[in-house]
Amino acid sequence: MKALIYHGIDKKDWEEKPKPTINKTTDAVVKILKTTICGTDLHIMKGDMPAVTDGRILGHEGVGIVEEVGSSVSNFKKGDHVIISCVTSCGKCEYCKKGMYSHCEDGGWILGYMIDGTQAEYVRIPHADNSLYHIPAGSDEEALVMLSDILPTGFECGVLNGQVKPGDTIAIIGAGPVGLAALLTSQFYTPAEIIMIDMDDNRLAVAKKFGATQTVNSSDGKAVEKVMKLTHNRGVDVAIEAVGMEATFEICSDIITAGGHIANIGVHGKSVALHMETLWSKNITITTRLVDTVTTPMLFKTVQSNKLQPKQLITHHFKLSQIIEAYDTFGHAAKEKALKVILTNE
Amino acid sequence: MKALIYHGIDKKDWEEKPKPTINKTTDAVVKILKTTICGTDLHIMKGDMPAVTDGRILGHEGVGIVEEVGSSVSNFKKGDHVIISCVTSCGKCEYCKKGMYSHCEDGGWILGYMIDGTQAEYVRIPHADNSLYHIPAGSDEEALVMLSDILPTGFECGVLNGQVKPGDTIAIIGAGPVGLAALLTSQFYTPAEIIMIDMDDNRLAVAKKFGATQTVNSSDGKAVEKVMKLTHNRGVDVAIEAVGMEATFEICSDIITAGGHIANIGVHGKSVALHMETLWSKNITITTRLVDTVTTPMLFKTVQSNKLQPKQLITHHFKLSQIIEAYDTFGHAAKEKALKVILTNE
Amino acid sequence: MKALIYHGIDKKDWEEKPKPTINKTTDAVVKILKTTICGTDLHIMKGDMPAVTDGRILGHEGVGIVEEVGSSVSNFKKGDHVIISCVTSCGKCEYCKKGMYSHCEDGGWILGYMIDGTQAEYVRIPHADNSLYHIPAGSDEEALVMLSDILPTGFECGVLNGQVKPGDTIAIIGAGPVGLAALLTSQFYTPAEIIMIDMDDNRLAVAKKFGATQTVNSSDGKAVEKVMKLTHNRGVDVAIEAVGMEATFEICSDIITAGGHIANIGVHGKSVALHMETLWSKNITITTRLVDTVTTPMLFKTVQSNKLQPKQLITHHFKLSQIIEAYDTFGHAAKEKALKVILTNE
Amino acid sequence: MKALIYHGIDKKDWEEKPKPTINKTTDAVVKILKTTICGTDLHIMKGDMPAVTDGRILGHEGVGIVEEVGSSVSNFKKGDHVIISCVTSCGKCEYCKKGMYSHCEDGGWILGYMIDGTQAEYVRIPHADNSLYHIPAGSDEEALVMLSDILPTGFECGVLNGQVKPGDTIAIIGAGPVGLAALLTSQFYTPAEIIMIDMDDNRLAVAKKFGATQTVNSSDGKAVEKVMKLTHNRGVDVAIEAVGMEATFEICSDIITAGGHIANIGVHGKSVALHMETLWSKNITITTRLVDTVTTPMLFKTVQSNKLQPKQLITHHFKLSQIIEAYDTFGHAAKEKALKVILTNE
Repeated sequence: MKALIYHGIDKKDWEEKPKPTINKTTDAVVKILKTTICGTDLHIMKGDMPAVTDGRILGHEGVGIVEEVGSSVSNFKKGDHVIISCVTSCGKCEYCKKGMYSHCEDGGWILGYMIDGTQAEYVRIPHADNSLYHIPAGSDEEALVMLSDILPTGFECGVLNGQVKPGDTIAIIGAGPVGLAALLTSQFYTPAEIIMIDMDDNRLAVAKKFGATQTVNSSDGKAVEKVMKLTHNRGVDVAIEAVGMEATFEICSDIITAGGHIANIGVHGKSVALHMETLWSKNITITTRLVDTVTTPMLFKTVQSNKLQPKQLITHHFKLSQIIEAYDTFGHAAKEKALKVILTNE
Repeated sequence: MKALIYHGIDKKDWEEKPKPTINKTTDAVVKILKTTICGTDLHIMKGDMPAVTDGRILGHEGVGIVEEVGSSVSNFKKGDHVIISCVTSCGKCEYCKKGMYSHCEDGGWILGYMIDGTQAEYVRIPHADNSLYHIPAGSDEEALVMLSDILPTGFECGVLNGQVKPGDTIAIIGAGPVGLAALLTSQFYTPAEIIMIDMDDNRLAVAKKFGATQTVNSSDGKAVEKVMKLTHNRGVDVAIEAVGMEATFEICSDIITAGGHIANIGVHGKSVALHMETLWSKNITITTRLVDTVTTPMLFKTVQSNKLQPKQLITHHFKLSQIIEAYDTFGHAAKEKALKVILTNE
Repeated sequence: MKALIYHGIDKKDWEEKPKPTINKTTDAVVKILKTTICGTDLHIMKGDMPAVTDGRILGHEGVGIVEEVGSSVSNFKKGDHVIISCVTSCGKCEYCKKGMYSHCEDGGWILGYMIDGTQAEYVRIPHADNSLYHIPAGSDEEALVMLSDILPTGFECGVLNGQVKPGDTIAIIGAGPVGLAALLTSQFYTPAEIIMIDMDDNRLAVAKKFGATQTVNSSDGKAVEKVMKLTHNRGVDVAIEAVGMEATFEICSDIITAGGHIANIGVHGKSVALHMETLWSKNITITTRLVDTVTTPMLFKTVQSNKLQPKQLITHHFKLSQIIEAYDTFGHAAKEKALKVILTNE
Repeated sequence: MKALIYHGIDKKDWEEKPKPTINKTTDAVVKILKTTICGTDLHIMKGDMPAVTDGRILGHEGVGIVEEVGSSVSNFKKGDHVIISCVTSCGKCEYCKKGMYSHCEDGGWILGYMIDGTQAEYVRIPHADNSLYHIPAGSDEEALVMLSDILPTGFECGVLNGQVKPGDTIAIIGAGPVGLAALLTSQFYTPAEIIMIDMDDNRLAVAKKFGATQTVNSSDGKAVEKVMKLTHNRGVDVAIEAVGMEATFEICSDIITAGGHIANIGVHGKSVALHMETLWSKNITITTRLVDTVTTPMLFKTVQSNKLQPKQLITHHFKLSQIIEAYDTFGHAAKEKALKVILTNE
């Protein structure tokens, strides 16, 4: 089969690899129908994640058709259409039993990272019964690729951890795909105001279309002042960090109101300053989370009932064999006005 | 009447002041029976809280007898024995309605800070109906002084925010009065292991007597290693910070297990480093809180039913008129093996 | 002034009464701008609530202008436009401190029941600071009458107690004003399916317009079968009872899925059969609640931000002086296709 | 091997049966070390559960040694000492993912009911990875038999669902083994008062020893009056039903205070009257639950740390081969003063 292979910093290729096979009785092999590229894949290409070794097939999102299952897989059979979760979960360790699949003792986020991933014609999925989800006939499968990672990430790490409530004023810092996923899913809980903060006017315009009630361009360094003005100096009930840098984290802690919630989604490479000299008495919560994908069934129901339109996040389409070109487009997201790209295995 | 007056950094005196009177219909004047000194009072004396002005009567804890009430006070009458809460709450602002009395728009922590306090023969209590609690006849009033501040602080900021559960392994950093209050009240939820961390062996011995299952002297800088060893490298489910310094906060973030809770009680004067480069994916919560005293009725029930013995926290007794001497003893807490001192208005 | 007076079963009159005055320092007198009639008022007229005495002014909903306040009222002053809550709360008893205003020791639902109510030109509101809510200039005051009772009732007793979640399948039994209020506010939490059950096709048509995804006419006694069919024999996650009869309560317990929530809103006059022989092992919760109006500020924010349009519930308009005629219309709600009527004090 | 076989109403025998074998790759065969008899087994013997067929091996509790595991079992291996959970869970269906193991689509309570159980020398355990728990060397294995069913049942259905809090006044109706398990585990949350209600003075004496603060003998039909008197007419915050009859359920609804929780544990054979005419406005919750055993790991930690002494529940010991005699003793529990009997496979 063909696959996108990582060969070290800035080196990748679309090349021939052996088709994966069942290793354990709990595995499934899935033929990819649609996959996509994640910001994390770009980080890997830059060498930010040295645990990824030369020869690794990247990708942790996608939908496909089950090709083969191990002998103890009972929820799926050959021919089933499935969503592939970015998180693999065994369903039987201490963490899985608590719904913390991200820390599964025999899984977690490993696809396209510690084991071969979905940017290929076929992929092996460990613990298939707990890591795949059925797609009913007639579904829009392209839209469902958004359920692999980006929607549960925005929802669990941002919206649920931020405890968004009806009538709340919330801010989301970062209008990239994950920030926009938080924006879409925050509306499940009917906040009164959603302030979107980013440095790119195009992304802010998209945010407006997706439901933001206010947008703030932070490139002048005055995001805090602007948010305080918009909130009549009260600050926000929930601040969702969807960037992963000290500057954006500090915006969160500067605009949070007493009793508020800062929900971090961003992947951070360095420590940040936490202003406990003011925060200690503000009765706030700060949360961190690697997505557990425990809400995938809930999100799926909202898609099936048209309460959520994931398709809005898709801006570009390629054949899977054009993946190098797709990486190029996605790598220049601002210029290309790209959110999520869909790669189709034809 | 006589009162302890603040006259600027390191200057205080026990001197004559006018007896307080009813200013508003919601006020009460309370004759002090017992009061105490808080670590915060020492901070004020050092000049750490410049908002406290020359001439202020210090003190925010105590029990007393109602001397006089304003015309709209309905819960209390002259002669009632009462606990004075360190937090004044109006009961009708946005924050009070949410149980966040600490941020009351016409109250919060103001006693012995923005208005005259309890280290005096009499004190005026604003919003008396919401800021005092009845003491039934026959109660041990000395023990109930601990309900003014220290027990709700340890319980709300540490134990409740830390979400201590049966079977948990928890650590409390700082075995001063507030850390010990967290230790006592954490046992309401039956954790399996309670690791107490401090630099003073005497306080650690007290902690052992109060229910700590393990103690760690952190003066060698090896607290993290020791806790990881005690927890078989798993870390703790809950880490309660009861000191208010960067070093102790970092211990918390170094020993917290995935999915755990860091509950800050300590008053911080500076920012701390938050190691988001490791914490971002650990699914933790960090909380801050100025005590709301919303649990005072619950704590009172646990004292009345002998589930909590606050008296254990009291190490020294003085007459109220000996308050200068009491400050001296409490100011050398380690040497004097002092936890809480009781001052009696005889 | 003029007021609607209860004179025993089926006897009422619009007659002259003395204008109310301040009795306690915490009272306000409010000039009524708009009021309405509640199903409960009809129950009173039928004699179902014998605690209501001859001479009582009915009514517990409305908006108005503050005419006068007692000396300890601090949140409101003469001239303020206000929503009158159907529940009076002192803000300082054990129940108010827990947010259970319905059981306030010096309040609860007393307006137009134990004390004179809002179907009059003026009304005295006890504990005004905790029982009134500010209306900003430029608001649609007519719509805000729905915040006095009906919207918090549907939301608190039905939606919050029912724990409605994104993706849920819910059923609401009873499409009267309160059931429709539950329907509108349930959408704050984005359920996938909302099945509305009633015996009146007109009300079901209204429900469809208000967001119900399915409607079931239960007049043939086959509601349970129809709901089970609609849910592929799974039943519903949440069943909200908005009628108050044994038959409708039993529908709830027959259609609830394992792990589901039955939230009762209806006022019951008799006991109901609870089928514990099947329910004991179904892991369900059943809740009851007299509205606390603790969510009024939250609901107000959703109205101000256009997430909720209470005006949809209003079908008829009268002058306050035409209240006898309005009672007649509301008393024949099905025939008149009446939901809520607005009475304006001109 | 030898096993206790059900042969229809009141007929059982200790007879030879084939030793179980691995049917599925997820099975384990466990050699029983210790087992016990449950009240449910007596119900089966009386014919109350007609789904149990002639030839069935009874029993759903026990500890043992793993004899053999299927090829996809990864948490356990031959020789491991294990607790057998009364509930079998696949770990991969919709219900297991929500922690509602009791409703597992390929499990739930099936042991000794739909499939052969633990009152035998060997038992086959389906979905072994999710249905067994490790016992560390040196543990008191006899005590751990109480973790199979009775302790999670009392804790989950009674204490957790009842939301017992520090300072609460709670009542437990029924001082049989499950009611006593609720009594022991309710103390994890430090209620102020625990009122135990039963008709047997011996069991009430045991309850007193186990931590009840008050006991009420209900044989005179005056339980409600007595509880109201003990609570100064306030009623209880939590009422735990551990019998399963209408009369005891009604005691719960008569003694519950406004805002309280009724948690049903009892297995009911008939419907009960629910007094909605008074309860509708009392802001209460009623819960039902078939034990999920999701708290077994938490309970295990409390046993290991000596916060819970399950051994107190054991009153009688027999050899497994004496099981007919043990049934006789347990069947006359009141006369024999029996709580739990331990059967040892020697």
